[in-house]
Amino acid sequence: MYPPSLRALIEAFRTLPGVGEKTAERYALMIAEQPAEETERFASALMNVKTTLRRCTVCGNLTDGEVCSVCKDPQRSHRQIFVVQSAKDVAAMEKTAEYNGVYHVLNGLISPSKGILPEDLNIERLTDRAKEADEVILATSATMDGETTAMYLDRLLKKEYPQLLVTRIAHGLPAGGMLDYADEITLSHALADRRKM
Amino acid sequence: MYPPSLRALIEAFRTLPGVGEKTAERYALMIAEQPAEETERFASALMNVKTTLRRCTVCGNLTDGEVCSVCKDPQRSHRQIFVVQSAKDVAAMEKTAEYNGVYHVLNGLISPSKGILPEDLNIERLTDRAKEADEVILATSATMDGETTAMYLDRLLKKEYPQLLVTRIAHGLPAGGMLDYADEITLSHALADRRKM
Repeated sequence: MYPPSLRALIEAFRTLPGVGEKTAERYALMIAEQPAEETERFASALMNVKTTLRRCTVCGNLTDGEVCSVCKDPQRSHRQIFVVQSAKDVAAMEKTAEYNGVYHVLNGLISPSKGILPEDLNIERLTDRAKEADEVILATSATMDGETTAMYLDRLLKKEYPQLLVTRIAHGLPAGGMLDYADEITLSHALADRRKM
Repeated sequence: MYPPSLRALIEAFRTLPGVGEKTAERYALMIAEQPAEETERFASALMNVKTTLRRCTVCGNLTDGEVCSVCKDPQRSHRQIFVVQSAKDVAAMEKTAEYNGVYHVLNGLISPSKGILPEDLNIERLTDRAKEADEVILATSATMDGETTAMYLDRLLKKEYPQLLVTRIAHGLPAGGMLDYADEITLSHALADRRKM
């Protein structure tokens, strides 16, 4: 139906999460009709992400440099570590402006059913960092895998550092809810109500 | 919150129709996590559309060559012209597989309120083509601007070619409905029930 170049762009858009045929068509037709400079800007934004974006060597968050802006910030408490599944959870938490510690991004959750084991995640670096910490806040989602991961990390950290305060973010989120979809108030409550594990 | 390279990509995605902050974030984070080759494929699909896609010199449909695949097809009746607002209406109609004539893409609708006048649209070429046609089917959307355009074209074509059969696609579509969102059955009915203007 559509010429091959447009068809290829529709297919590219269809690889995005939640995008079906109709939506991909609308996106591609908008691109087809916009000035070439805007499409060039889009294409180079895509490629820039591949060339400059990387993982923070300290916490695993996304960054354009070596170390992310949170880890570089001397105003923040580096003795409090908020452990999340992914970089978008960091962004969601930062929006509450209620947390002044640092983060640790696991890049996934332990999931026996999907074959994701602790050694596949950014956990070893967390045990190193916990040595210098007063508190580790486990903020994985309120899902099965999120709870499994929190339980595993609690046991691992307590074994290594019996004095360390390990807390779990409060279940203000509805069961099965994803961290990055919660509103800011729910997230703020969840931070305030964290309990000792 | 997010590093500048990722922020720029989120902004690029936000320019797509109907895409808000959350959706743009999800798209950008998926790109951040996919292999570089896939992102390269995406970026070149974007740029290819700008370098190869153009308007068919006969009908105004989108094509990678000079003339679109419908206009090039000798199996189709070139004496029946189906007039639509945009290339996606051609794609929607082709899916019904019930039409064997050719198309004419106006690239918009006459809209006095938006300041779009007949001379801004691909209409002159239509009056040329109508000379060789037996029937012109007006298939603009069932909206105010769609009706205005159909009425304008009817008068224009009848004045020039008093013998020409000018028809209007039937109103199987709900009022205010857009052609490219209608299902195939509704579109098929609308074609079958077209009435002489």
